[in-house]
Amino acid sequence: MTSTPKGKEVQAGKLYGVGLGPGDPDLITRKAARLIETAKVIAYPTLAGSDSFARAIAVDLIPADVREIVMDVPMSVERGPAQSAYDAGAAAIAAALENGDDVVCLCEGDPFFYGSFMYLHARLSERFVCEVVPGVTSVTACAARAAMPLAARNERVTILPGPLPEEELRSRIEGAESVVIMKVGRHLEKIRQVIDALGLTHDATYVERATLPDEIVLPLSEAPETAPYFSMILLTKGADPWL
Amino acid sequence: MTSTPKGKEVQAGKLYGVGLGPGDPDLITRKAARLIETAKVIAYPTLAGSDSFARAIAVDLIPADVREIVMDVPMSVERGPAQSAYDAGAAAIAAALENGDDVVCLCEGDPFFYGSFMYLHARLSERFVCEVVPGVTSVTACAARAAMPLAARNERVTILPGPLPEEELRSRIEGAESVVIMKVGRHLEKIRQVIDALGLTHDATYVERATLPDEIVLPLSEAPETAPYFSMILLTKGADPWL
Ligand SMILES: C[S@@+](CC[C@H](N)C(=O)[O-])C[C@H]1O[C@@H](n2cnc3c(N)ncnc32)[C@H](O)[C@@H]1O
Ligand SMILES: C[S@@+](CC[C@H](N)C(=O)[O-])C[C@H]1O[C@@H](n2cnc3c(N)ncnc32)[C@H](O)[C@@H]1O
Repeated sequence: MTSTPKGKEVQAGKLYGVGLGPGDPDLITRKAARLIETAKVIAYPTLAGSDSFARAIAVDLIPADVREIVMDVPMSVERGPAQSAYDAGAAAIAAALENGDDVVCLCEGDPFFYGSFMYLHARLSERFVCEVVPGVTSVTACAARAAMPLAARNERVTILPGPLPEEELRSRIEGAESVVIMKVGRHLEKIRQVIDALGLTHDATYVERATLPDEIVLPLSEAPETAPYFSMILLTKGADPWL
Repeated sequence: MTSTPKGKEVQAGKLYGVGLGPGDPDLITRKAARLIETAKVIAYPTLAGSDSFARAIAVDLIPADVREIVMDVPMSVERGPAQSAYDAGAAAIAAALENGDDVVCLCEGDPFFYGSFMYLHARLSERFVCEVVPGVTSVTACAARAAMPLAARNERVTILPGPLPEEELRSRIEGAESVVIMKVGRHLEKIRQVIDALGLTHDATYVERATLPDEIVLPLSEAPETAPYFSMILLTKGADPWL
Protein backbone atom coordinates (compact mmCIF):
# COMPACT_ATOMS: atom_id res chain seq x y z
CA MET A 1 0.00 0.00 0.00
CA THR A 2 1.17 3.53 -0.75
CA SER A 3 0.74 5.21 2.62
CA THR A 4 -0.60 8.74 2.51
CA PRO A 5 2.29 11.14 2.87
CA LYS A 6 0.52 12.92 5.74
CA GLY A 7 3.08 13.47 8.46
CA LYS A 8 5.77 11.80 6.38
CA GLU A 9 9.01 13.15 5.05
CA VAL A 10 7.69 13.84 1.57
CA GLN A 11 10.97 15.12 0.13
CA ALA A 12 12.46 11.80 1.13
CA GLY A 13 12.74 8.70 -1.01
CA LYS A 14 10.19 5.89 -0.99
CA LEU A 15 10.63 2.56 0.75
CA TYR A 16 9.66 -0.52 -1.27
CA GLY A 17 9.25 -3.99 0.23
CA VAL A 18 9.44 -6.18 -2.83
CA GLY A 19 8.38 -9.84 -2.91
CA LEU A 20 10.55 -11.98 -5.18
CA GLY A 21 8.67 -15.28 -5.07
CA PRO A 22 9.87 -18.70 -3.90
CA GLY A 23 13.17 -18.96 -5.76
CA ASP A 24 12.80 -19.28 -9.56
CA PRO A 25 13.71 -15.80 -10.89
CA ASP A 26 11.02 -16.31 -13.54
CA LEU A 27 8.41 -16.09 -10.78
CA ILE A 28 9.39 -12.51 -10.01
CA THR A 29 6.54 -10.17 -10.94
CA ARG A 30 6.97 -7.58 -13.67
CA LYS A 31 6.62 -4.81 -11.09
CA ALA A 32 9.31 -6.24 -8.81
CA ALA A 33 11.64 -6.77 -11.76
CA ARG A 34 11.28 -3.16 -12.89
CA LEU A 35 11.85 -1.77 -9.40
CA ILE A 36 15.04 -3.79 -8.97
CA GLU A 37 16.39 -3.02 -12.44
CA THR A 38 16.07 0.71 -11.80
CA ALA A 39 17.12 0.69 -8.13
CA LYS A 40 19.88 2.95 -6.80
CA VAL A 41 19.80 1.42 -3.31
CA ILE A 42 18.77 -2.11 -2.36
CA ALA A 43 18.58 -3.65 1.14
CA TYR A 44 18.27 -7.20 2.40
CA PRO A 45 18.95 -9.29 5.49
CA THR A 46 21.47 -12.11 5.71
CA LEU A 47 21.32 -14.77 8.40
CA ALA A 48 24.43 -15.10 10.53
CA GLY A 49 26.79 -14.16 7.72
CA SER A 50 25.44 -16.58 5.11
CA ASP A 51 24.41 -15.52 1.60
CA SER A 52 21.08 -13.79 1.10
CA PHE A 53 18.53 -16.02 -0.64
CA ALA A 54 16.52 -12.95 -1.65
CA ARG A 55 19.57 -11.39 -3.31
CA ALA A 56 20.34 -14.64 -5.11
CA ILE A 57 16.81 -14.76 -6.60
CA ALA A 58 17.16 -11.22 -7.95
CA VAL A 59 20.85 -11.28 -8.84
CA ASP A 60 20.44 -11.04 -12.63
CA LEU A 61 18.34 -7.89 -12.25
CA ILE A 62 20.54 -5.96 -9.80
CA PRO A 63 22.28 -2.99 -11.46
CA ALA A 64 26.07 -3.10 -11.32
CA ASP A 65 26.44 0.28 -9.59
CA VAL A 66 23.72 -0.23 -6.98
CA ARG A 67 24.38 0.54 -3.31
CA GLU A 68 23.65 -2.44 -1.05
CA ILE A 69 22.53 -2.15 2.57
CA VAL A 70 23.13 -5.54 4.20
CA MET A 71 21.57 -6.37 7.55
CA ASP A 72 23.37 -9.27 9.11
CA VAL A 73 20.93 -10.89 11.51
CA PRO A 74 22.62 -13.08 14.12
CA MET A 75 21.20 -16.53 14.92
CA SER A 76 19.92 -16.41 18.49
CA VAL A 77 16.87 -17.43 20.52
CA GLU A 78 16.95 -14.06 22.28
CA ARG A 79 15.32 -11.26 20.33
CA GLY A 80 17.82 -8.58 21.35
CA PRO A 81 20.62 -9.24 18.85
CA ALA A 82 18.21 -9.48 15.89
CA GLN A 83 16.43 -6.34 17.04
CA SER A 84 19.75 -4.48 17.03
CA ALA A 85 20.46 -5.69 13.50
CA TYR A 86 17.09 -4.41 12.27
CA ASP A 87 17.56 -1.15 14.20
CA ALA A 88 20.90 -0.59 12.49
CA GLY A 89 19.49 -1.60 9.09
CA ALA A 90 16.50 0.71 9.53
CA ALA A 91 18.85 3.57 10.42
CA ALA A 92 20.94 3.01 7.27
CA ILE A 93 17.80 2.80 5.13
CA ALA A 94 16.39 5.96 6.77
CA ALA A 95 19.60 7.83 5.93
CA ALA A 96 19.31 6.81 2.26
CA LEU A 97 15.61 7.79 2.17
CA GLU A 98 16.38 11.15 3.77
CA ASN A 99 18.99 11.64 1.10
CA GLY A 100 16.12 11.44 -1.42
CA ASP A 101 16.88 7.95 -2.70
CA ASP A 102 14.26 5.23 -3.00
CA VAL A 103 15.23 2.00 -1.25
CA VAL A 104 14.17 -1.40 -2.59
CA CYS A 105 14.11 -4.10 0.10
CA LEU A 106 14.46 -7.57 -1.39
CA CYS A 107 12.16 -10.18 0.19
CA GLU A 108 11.95 -13.88 -0.51
CA GLY A 109 8.36 -14.92 -1.30
CA ASP A 110 5.95 -12.26 -0.09
CA PRO A 111 7.15 -9.45 2.26
CA PHE A 112 4.21 -9.68 4.69
CA PHE A 113 3.98 -13.47 4.85
CA TYR A 114 6.49 -14.53 7.52
CA GLY A 115 8.92 -12.09 5.97
CA SER A 116 11.48 -10.04 7.88
CA PHE A 117 10.49 -6.93 5.90
CA MET A 118 7.74 -6.36 8.45
CA TYR A 119 10.39 -5.50 11.05
CA LEU A 120 11.64 -2.71 8.79
CA HIS A 121 8.08 -1.67 7.99
CA ALA A 122 7.35 -1.38 11.73
CA ARG A 123 10.39 0.85 12.17
CA LEU A 124 10.05 3.05 9.08
CA SER A 125 6.49 3.22 7.73
CA GLU A 126 5.35 6.03 9.97
CA ARG A 127 8.14 8.32 8.81
CA PHE A 128 8.44 7.40 5.16
CA VAL A 129 6.14 6.61 2.26
CA CYS A 130 6.18 2.86 1.93
CA GLU A 131 4.84 0.45 -0.69
CA VAL A 132 4.67 -3.31 -0.36
CA VAL A 133 4.79 -5.24 -3.64
CA PRO A 134 3.28 -8.68 -3.00
CA GLY A 135 5.04 -11.76 -4.33
CA VAL A 136 4.29 -15.42 -5.00
CA THR A 137 4.45 -17.21 -1.63
CA SER A 138 6.20 -20.51 -1.04
CA VAL A 139 2.80 -21.96 -0.11
CA THR A 140 1.23 -21.82 -3.54
CA ALA A 141 4.60 -22.53 -5.17
CA CYS A 142 4.89 -25.79 -3.20
CA ALA A 143 1.30 -26.71 -4.04
CA ALA A 144 1.99 -26.10 -7.74
CA ARG A 145 5.15 -28.18 -7.73
CA ALA A 146 3.46 -30.99 -5.78
CA ALA A 147 0.46 -30.84 -8.18
CA MET A 148 -1.75 -30.57 -5.08
CA PRO A 149 -4.65 -28.10 -5.09
CA LEU A 150 -4.70 -26.29 -1.74
CA ALA A 151 -8.35 -25.43 -1.30
CA ALA A 152 -11.60 -25.28 -3.23
CA ARG A 153 -15.11 -24.00 -2.55
CA ASN A 154 -15.68 -23.67 1.20
CA GLU A 155 -12.61 -25.51 2.40
CA ARG A 156 -10.45 -23.97 5.09
CA VAL A 157 -6.66 -23.60 5.01
CA THR A 158 -4.53 -23.58 8.15
CA ILE A 159 -0.94 -22.39 8.04
CA LEU A 160 1.24 -23.52 10.93
CA PRO A 161 4.92 -22.83 11.65
CA GLY A 162 6.85 -26.03 12.37
CA PRO A 163 8.54 -24.66 15.53
CA LEU A 164 5.16 -24.73 17.37
CA PRO A 165 5.09 -27.17 20.30
CA GLU A 166 4.11 -30.76 19.47
CA GLU A 167 0.83 -30.54 21.38
CA GLU A 168 -0.26 -27.40 19.59
CA LEU A 169 0.64 -28.81 16.18
CA ARG A 170 -1.41 -31.90 16.98
CA SER A 171 -4.52 -30.03 18.07
CA ARG A 172 -4.35 -27.55 15.17
CA ILE A 173 -3.88 -30.26 12.55
CA GLU A 174 -6.61 -32.46 13.99
CA GLY A 175 -9.48 -30.06 13.41
CA ALA A 176 -8.23 -28.75 10.07
CA GLU A 177 -8.83 -29.40 6.38
CA SER A 178 -5.87 -28.29 4.24
CA VAL A 179 -2.79 -27.75 6.37
CA VAL A 180 0.48 -26.08 5.40
CA ILE A 181 3.45 -26.49 7.73
CA MET A 182 6.17 -23.87 7.21
CA LYS A 183 9.71 -23.66 8.60
CA VAL A 184 10.12 -27.43 8.78
CA GLY A 185 13.94 -27.62 8.98
CA ARG A 186 15.10 -29.18 12.22
CA HIS A 187 11.50 -29.74 13.34
CA LEU A 188 10.93 -32.45 10.71
CA GLU A 189 11.08 -35.39 13.12
CA LYS A 190 8.60 -33.82 15.57
CA ILE A 191 6.18 -32.91 12.76
CA ARG A 192 6.46 -36.38 11.23
CA GLN A 193 5.54 -37.96 14.57
CA VAL A 194 2.51 -35.71 15.00
CA ILE A 195 1.24 -36.48 11.49
CA ASP A 196 1.92 -40.21 11.95
CA ALA A 197 0.09 -40.32 15.29
CA LEU A 198 -2.93 -38.69 13.60
CA GLY A 199 -2.83 -41.35 10.86
CA LEU A 200 -2.38 -38.69 8.16
CA THR A 201 1.02 -39.59 6.73
CA HIS A 202 -0.44 -40.85 3.44
CA ASP A 203 -2.02 -37.41 2.85
CA ALA A 204 1.23 -35.52 3.48
CA THR A 205 3.73 -34.25 0.92
CA TYR A 206 7.21 -32.93 1.64
CA VAL A 207 8.54 -30.12 -0.58
CA GLU A 208 12.07 -28.78 -0.36
CA ARG A 209 13.43 -25.74 -2.24
CA ALA A 210 10.39 -25.52 -4.52
CA THR A 211 10.99 -24.04 -8.00
CA LEU A 212 14.79 -24.22 -7.61
CA PRO A 213 16.96 -26.58 -9.68
CA ASP A 214 17.55 -28.89 -6.68
CA GLU A 215 13.88 -29.02 -5.66
CA ILE A 216 12.57 -32.16 -3.93
CA VAL A 217 8.90 -33.25 -3.91
CA LEU A 218 8.19 -36.52 -2.08
CA PRO A 219 5.48 -38.24 -0.10
CA LEU A 220 6.25 -37.48 3.55
CA SER A 221 6.84 -41.19 4.13
CA GLU A 222 9.81 -41.01 1.71
CA ALA A 223 11.18 -37.64 2.87
CA PRO A 224 14.86 -37.43 3.82
CA GLU A 225 15.96 -37.72 7.46
CA THR A 226 16.90 -34.08 7.71
CA ALA A 227 15.28 -31.07 6.12
CA PRO A 228 16.79 -27.71 5.21
CA TYR A 229 15.18 -24.46 6.34
CA PHE A 230 13.49 -24.00 2.95
CA SER A 231 11.11 -26.92 3.23
CA MET A 232 7.40 -27.34 3.81
CA ILE A 233 4.81 -30.04 4.42
CA LEU A 234 1.41 -29.96 2.71
CA LEU A 235 -1.50 -31.95 4.12
CA THR A 236 -4.68 -31.93 2.09
CA LYS A 237 -7.07 -34.34 3.75
CA GLY A 238 -10.18 -32.55 2.71
CA ALA A 239 -9.43 -31.25 -0.77
CA ASP A 240 -11.89 -32.49 -3.36
CA PRO A 241 -10.67 -30.93 -6.58
CA TRP A 242 -13.28 -32.69 -8.71
CA LEU A 243 -16.22 -30.36 -9.04
CA MET B 1 4.71 -29.26 -11.37
CA THR B 2 5.71 -30.81 -14.66
CA SER B 3 4.15 -34.23 -14.35
CA THR B 4 6.26 -37.10 -15.66
CA PRO B 5 5.01 -38.05 -19.11
CA LYS B 6 4.63 -41.68 -18.03
CA GLY B 7 1.30 -42.90 -19.35
CA LYS B 8 0.59 -39.49 -20.88
CA GLU B 9 0.02 -38.51 -24.45
CA VAL B 10 3.55 -37.26 -25.04
CA GLN B 11 3.02 -36.11 -28.62
CA ALA B 12 0.27 -33.91 -27.31
CA GLY B 13 0.55 -30.30 -26.22
CA LYS B 14 1.16 -29.24 -22.65
CA LEU B 15 -1.47 -27.83 -20.34
CA TYR B 16 -0.49 -24.74 -18.33
CA GLY B 17 -2.47 -23.39 -15.39
CA VAL B 18 -1.15 -19.87 -15.12
CA GLY B 19 -1.68 -17.62 -12.09
CA LEU B 20 -2.12 -13.95 -13.00
CA GLY B 21 -2.17 -12.36 -9.56
CA PRO B 22 -4.91 -10.30 -7.92
CA GLY B 23 -5.69 -7.82 -10.69
CA ASP B 24 -2.88 -5.34 -11.41
CA PRO B 25 -1.29 -6.63 -14.65
CA ASP B 26 2.07 -5.52 -13.26
CA LEU B 27 1.77 -8.30 -10.66
CA ILE B 28 1.85 -10.97 -13.37
CA THR B 29 5.06 -12.99 -13.09
CA ARG B 30 7.62 -12.94 -15.88
CA LYS B 31 6.94 -16.62 -16.56
CA ALA B 32 3.17 -16.13 -16.86
CA ALA B 33 3.67 -13.11 -19.12
CA ARG B 34 5.92 -15.06 -21.48
CA LEU B 35 3.55 -18.03 -21.66
CA ILE B 36 0.61 -15.80 -22.53
CA GLU B 37 2.52 -13.69 -25.07
CA THR B 38 3.51 -16.83 -26.97
CA ALA B 39 0.24 -18.75 -26.57
CA LYS B 40 -1.62 -20.21 -29.53
CA VAL B 41 -4.58 -21.36 -27.42
CA ILE B 42 -5.82 -19.83 -24.18
CA ALA B 43 -8.72 -21.00 -21.99
CA TYR B 44 -10.65 -19.41 -19.14
CA PRO B 45 -13.98 -19.62 -17.35
CA THR B 46 -16.64 -16.95 -17.30
CA LEU B 47 -19.36 -16.83 -14.67
CA ALA B 48 -22.91 -16.86 -16.01
CA GLY B 49 -22.02 -14.96 -19.16
CA SER B 50 -20.16 -12.08 -17.52
CA ASP B 51 -16.67 -10.99 -18.57
CA SER B 52 -13.68 -13.02 -17.42
CA PHE B 53 -11.63 -11.25 -14.74
CA ALA B 54 -8.62 -13.45 -15.56
CA ARG B 55 -8.79 -12.47 -19.23
CA ALA B 56 -9.07 -8.79 -18.29
CA ILE B 57 -5.89 -8.98 -16.18
CA ALA B 58 -3.93 -10.50 -19.06
CA VAL B 59 -5.58 -8.64 -21.94
CA ASP B 60 -2.55 -6.57 -22.99
CA LEU B 61 -0.47 -9.74 -23.35
CA ILE B 62 -2.90 -11.87 -25.36
CA PRO B 63 -1.78 -12.32 -28.99
CA ALA B 64 -4.26 -11.05 -31.58
CA ASP B 65 -4.53 -14.36 -33.41
CA VAL B 66 -4.93 -16.57 -30.33
CA ARG B 67 -7.68 -19.18 -30.14
CA GLU B 68 -9.86 -18.76 -27.04
CA ILE B 69 -11.66 -21.59 -25.28
CA VAL B 70 -14.34 -20.04 -23.07
CA MET B 71 -16.06 -22.10 -20.39
CA ASP B 72 -19.26 -20.41 -19.35
CA VAL B 73 -20.03 -21.64 -15.85
CA PRO B 74 -23.67 -21.15 -14.86
CA MET B 75 -24.50 -19.72 -11.43
CA SER B 76 -26.24 -22.47 -9.47
CA VAL B 77 -26.18 -24.06 -6.03
CA GLU B 78 -26.34 -27.50 -7.64
CA ARG B 79 -23.01 -28.82 -8.85
CA GLY B 80 -24.35 -30.46 -11.99
CA PRO B 81 -24.51 -27.48 -14.36
CA ALA B 82 -21.01 -26.27 -13.43
CA GLN B 83 -19.67 -29.81 -13.77
CA SER B 84 -21.06 -29.97 -17.31
CA ALA B 85 -19.39 -26.68 -18.16
CA TYR B 86 -16.02 -27.95 -16.95
CA ASP B 87 -16.58 -31.28 -18.72
CA ALA B 88 -17.21 -29.46 -22.00
CA GLY B 89 -14.25 -27.10 -21.42
CA ALA B 90 -11.97 -30.02 -20.61
CA ALA B 91 -13.07 -31.79 -23.80
CA ALA B 92 -12.30 -28.71 -25.92
CA ILE B 93 -8.92 -28.30 -24.22
CA ALA B 94 -8.15 -32.01 -24.68
CA ALA B 95 -8.88 -31.70 -28.40
CA ALA B 96 -6.43 -28.79 -28.70
CA LEU B 97 -3.77 -30.68 -26.71
CA GLU B 98 -4.24 -33.79 -28.87
CA ASN B 99 -3.76 -31.55 -31.86
CA GLY B 100 -0.27 -30.81 -30.49
CA ASP B 101 -1.02 -27.31 -29.25
CA ASP B 102 -0.13 -26.11 -25.77
CA VAL B 103 -3.06 -24.62 -23.89
CA VAL B 104 -2.59 -21.76 -21.41
CA CYS B 105 -5.39 -21.57 -18.84
CA LEU B 106 -5.72 -18.08 -17.37
CA CYS B 107 -6.32 -18.03 -13.60
CA GLU B 108 -6.96 -15.08 -11.35
CA GLY B 109 -4.55 -15.08 -8.38
CA ASP B 110 -3.04 -18.53 -7.97
CA PRO B 111 -4.50 -21.55 -9.84
CA PHE B 112 -4.51 -23.93 -6.84
CA PHE B 113 -5.78 -21.45 -4.25
CA TYR B 114 -9.58 -21.53 -4.53
CA GLY B 115 -9.14 -21.44 -8.30
CA SER B 116 -11.36 -23.19 -10.80
CA PHE B 117 -8.30 -24.45 -12.66
CA MET B 118 -8.24 -27.38 -10.26
CA TYR B 119 -11.42 -28.71 -11.88
CA LEU B 120 -9.62 -28.82 -15.23
CA HIS B 121 -6.52 -30.27 -13.59
CA ALA B 122 -8.64 -33.07 -12.08
CA ARG B 123 -10.07 -33.88 -15.50
CA LEU B 124 -6.90 -33.60 -17.61
CA SER B 125 -3.71 -34.08 -15.60
CA GLU B 126 -3.65 -37.85 -15.86
CA ARG B 127 -3.76 -37.78 -19.65
CA PHE B 128 -1.65 -34.73 -20.43
CA VAL B 129 1.56 -33.14 -19.21
CA CYS B 130 0.50 -30.29 -16.97
CA GLU B 131 2.38 -27.43 -15.33
CA VAL B 132 0.99 -25.05 -12.74
CA VAL B 133 2.60 -21.60 -12.65
CA PRO B 134 1.90 -20.12 -9.22
CA GLY B 135 0.71 -16.53 -8.95
CA VAL B 136 0.41 -13.80 -6.34
CA THR B 137 -2.71 -14.60 -4.29
CA SER B 138 -5.33 -12.07 -3.28
CA VAL B 139 -4.40 -12.79 0.36
CA THR B 140 -0.95 -11.27 0.32
CA ALA B 141 -2.09 -8.60 -2.15
CA CYS B 142 -4.78 -7.45 0.29
CA ALA B 143 -2.29 -7.51 3.18
CA ALA B 144 0.13 -5.39 1.14
CA ARG B 145 -2.52 -2.87 0.20
CA ALA B 146 -3.83 -2.70 3.77
CA ALA B 147 -0.26 -2.31 5.08
CA MET B 148 -1.02 -5.19 7.45
CA PRO B 149 1.61 -7.91 7.96
CA LEU B 150 -0.13 -11.30 7.89
CA ALA B 151 2.10 -13.41 10.10
CA ALA B 152 5.52 -13.40 11.73
CA ARG B 153 7.60 -15.92 13.62
CA ASN B 154 5.41 -18.72 15.02
CA GLU B 155 2.03 -17.13 14.36
CA ARG B 156 -0.68 -19.16 12.68
CA VAL B 157 -2.81 -18.08 9.73
CA THR B 158 -6.36 -19.34 9.19
CA ILE B 159 -8.07 -18.89 5.85
CA LEU B 160 -11.86 -19.16 5.89
CA PRO B 161 -14.38 -18.84 3.07
CA GLY B 162 -17.17 -16.40 3.91
CA PRO B 163 -19.99 -18.77 2.84
CA LEU B 164 -19.24 -21.02 5.87
CA PRO B 165 -22.13 -21.16 8.35
CA GLU B 166 -22.16 -18.46 11.04
CA GLU B 167 -21.46 -20.94 13.86
CA GLU B 168 -18.43 -22.38 12.10
CA LEU B 169 -17.02 -18.94 11.28
CA ARG B 170 -17.40 -17.98 14.93
CA SER B 171 -15.63 -21.05 16.32
CA ARG B 172 -12.83 -20.90 13.74
CA ILE B 173 -12.16 -17.20 14.28
CA GLU B 174 -12.27 -17.49 18.05
CA GLY B 175 -9.28 -19.78 18.42
CA ALA B 176 -7.23 -18.18 15.66
CA GLU B 177 -4.45 -15.62 15.34
CA SER B 178 -4.35 -14.04 11.87
CA VAL B 179 -7.58 -14.71 10.00
CA VAL B 180 -8.31 -14.15 6.31
CA ILE B 181 -11.93 -14.32 5.17
CA MET B 182 -12.33 -14.91 1.44
CA LYS B 183 -15.43 -14.71 -0.79
CA VAL B 184 -17.08 -12.04 1.33
CA GLY B 185 -19.63 -10.74 -1.22
CA ARG B 186 -23.18 -11.28 -0.06
CA HIS B 187 -21.96 -12.82 3.22
CA LEU B 188 -20.67 -9.46 4.51
CA GLU B 189 -23.47 -8.88 7.00
CA LYS B 190 -23.16 -12.34 8.54
CA ILE B 191 -19.37 -12.04 8.82
CA ARG B 192 -19.64 -8.56 10.32
CA GLN B 193 -22.00 -9.86 13.02
CA VAL B 194 -19.68 -12.74 13.89
CA ILE B 195 -16.67 -10.43 14.19
CA ASP B 196 -18.68 -7.88 16.18
CA ALA B 197 -19.97 -10.51 18.60
CA LEU B 198 -16.37 -11.61 19.21
CA GLY B 199 -15.38 -8.00 19.95
CA LEU B 200 -12.83 -8.02 17.12
CA THR B 201 -14.20 -5.33 14.82
CA HIS B 202 -11.39 -2.89 15.61
CA ASP B 203 -8.83 -5.48 14.39
CA ALA B 204 -10.61 -6.08 11.10
CA THR B 205 -9.89 -4.51 7.71
CA TYR B 206 -12.08 -4.71 4.63
CA VAL B 207 -10.37 -4.83 1.22
CA GLU B 208 -12.22 -4.71 -2.08
CA ARG B 209 -10.68 -5.19 -5.54
CA ALA B 210 -7.12 -4.94 -4.21
CA THR B 211 -4.48 -3.60 -6.65
CA LEU B 212 -7.16 -2.43 -9.13
CA PRO B 213 -7.81 1.27 -9.86
CA ASP B 214 -11.10 1.21 -7.89
CA GLU B 215 -9.63 -0.59 -4.87
CA ILE B 216 -11.13 0.07 -1.42
CA VAL B 217 -9.27 -0.43 1.88
CA LEU B 218 -11.24 0.47 5.02
CA PRO B 219 -11.59 -0.47 8.66
CA LEU B 220 -14.42 -3.04 8.77
CA SER B 221 -16.47 -0.60 10.85
CA GLU B 222 -16.48 1.80 7.86
CA ALA B 223 -17.00 -0.82 5.13
CA PRO B 224 -19.86 -0.32 2.69
CA GLU B 225 -23.23 -2.02 3.21
CA THR B 226 -22.75 -4.39 0.32
CA ALA B 227 -19.60 -6.07 -0.89
CA PRO B 228 -18.73 -7.34 -4.38
CA TYR B 229 -17.44 -10.89 -4.91
CA PHE B 230 -13.84 -9.64 -5.05
CA SER B 231 -13.56 -8.59 -1.43
CA MET B 232 -11.85 -9.92 1.67
CA ILE B 233 -11.61 -9.28 5.39
CA LEU B 234 -8.29 -9.43 7.24
CA LEU B 235 -8.18 -9.92 10.99
CA THR B 236 -4.80 -9.74 12.62
CA LYS B 237 -5.34 -9.90 16.33
CA GLY B 238 -2.07 -11.54 17.11
CA ALA B 239 0.37 -9.99 14.69
CA ASP B 240 3.31 -8.34 16.41
CA PRO B 241 5.39 -6.99 13.57
CA TRP B 242 7.90 -5.33 15.86
CA LEU B 243 10.75 -7.76 16.37
C1 LIG C 1 10.68 -16.95 6.96
S1 LIG C 1 9.58 -17.90 5.98
C2 LIG C 1 9.46 -16.86 4.54
C3 LIG C 1 8.24 -17.14 3.71
C4 LIG C 1 8.19 -16.24 2.49
N1 LIG C 1 8.13 -14.83 2.83
C5 LIG C 1 7.02 -16.60 1.59
O1 LIG C 1 6.22 -15.74 1.25
O2 LIG C 1 6.93 -17.79 1.21
C6 LIG C 1 10.62 -19.20 5.44
C7 LIG C 1 9.86 -20.49 5.21
O3 LIG C 1 9.18 -20.43 3.97
C8 LIG C 1 9.16 -21.71 3.36
N2 LIG C 1 9.81 -21.60 2.04
C9 LIG C 1 10.27 -20.48 1.47
N3 LIG C 1 10.75 -20.73 0.23
C10 LIG C 1 10.57 -22.05 0.01
C11 LIG C 1 10.82 -22.91 -1.10
N4 LIG C 1 11.36 -22.44 -2.24
N5 LIG C 1 10.50 -24.22 -0.97
C12 LIG C 1 9.94 -24.69 0.16
N6 LIG C 1 9.67 -23.92 1.23
C13 LIG C 1 9.97 -22.61 1.15
C14 LIG C 1 9.90 -22.67 4.26
O4 LIG C 1 8.94 -23.35 5.05
C15 LIG C 1 10.75 -21.72 5.07
O5 LIG C 1 11.07 -22.27 6.33
C1 LIG D 1 -12.56 -18.03 -6.19
S1 LIG D 1 -11.50 -17.13 -5.11
C2 LIG D 1 -10.05 -17.02 -6.12
C3 LIG D 1 -8.82 -16.70 -5.35
C4 LIG D 1 -7.59 -16.58 -6.24
N1 LIG D 1 -7.33 -17.80 -6.97
C5 LIG D 1 -6.37 -16.16 -5.46
O1 LIG D 1 -5.33 -16.84 -5.55
O2 LIG D 1 -6.43 -15.14 -4.78
C6 LIG D 1 -12.21 -15.53 -5.21
C7 LIG D 1 -12.01 -14.73 -3.93
O3 LIG D 1 -10.69 -14.24 -3.87
C8 LIG D 1 -10.68 -12.97 -3.26
N2 LIG D 1 -10.09 -12.01 -4.20
C9 LIG D 1 -9.59 -12.28 -5.41
N3 LIG D 1 -9.07 -11.18 -5.96
C10 LIG D 1 -9.26 -10.16 -5.09
C11 LIG D 1 -8.91 -8.78 -5.08
N4 LIG D 1 -8.28 -8.21 -6.11
N5 LIG D 1 -9.25 -8.05 -3.99
C12 LIG D 1 -9.89 -8.62 -2.94
N6 LIG D 1 -10.22 -9.93 -2.90
C13 LIG D 1 -9.90 -10.69 -3.96
C14 LIG D 1 -12.10 -12.61 -2.89
O4 LIG D 1 -12.32 -12.97 -1.54
C15 LIG D 1 -12.88 -13.50 -3.84
O5 LIG D 1 -14.17 -13.79 -3.33
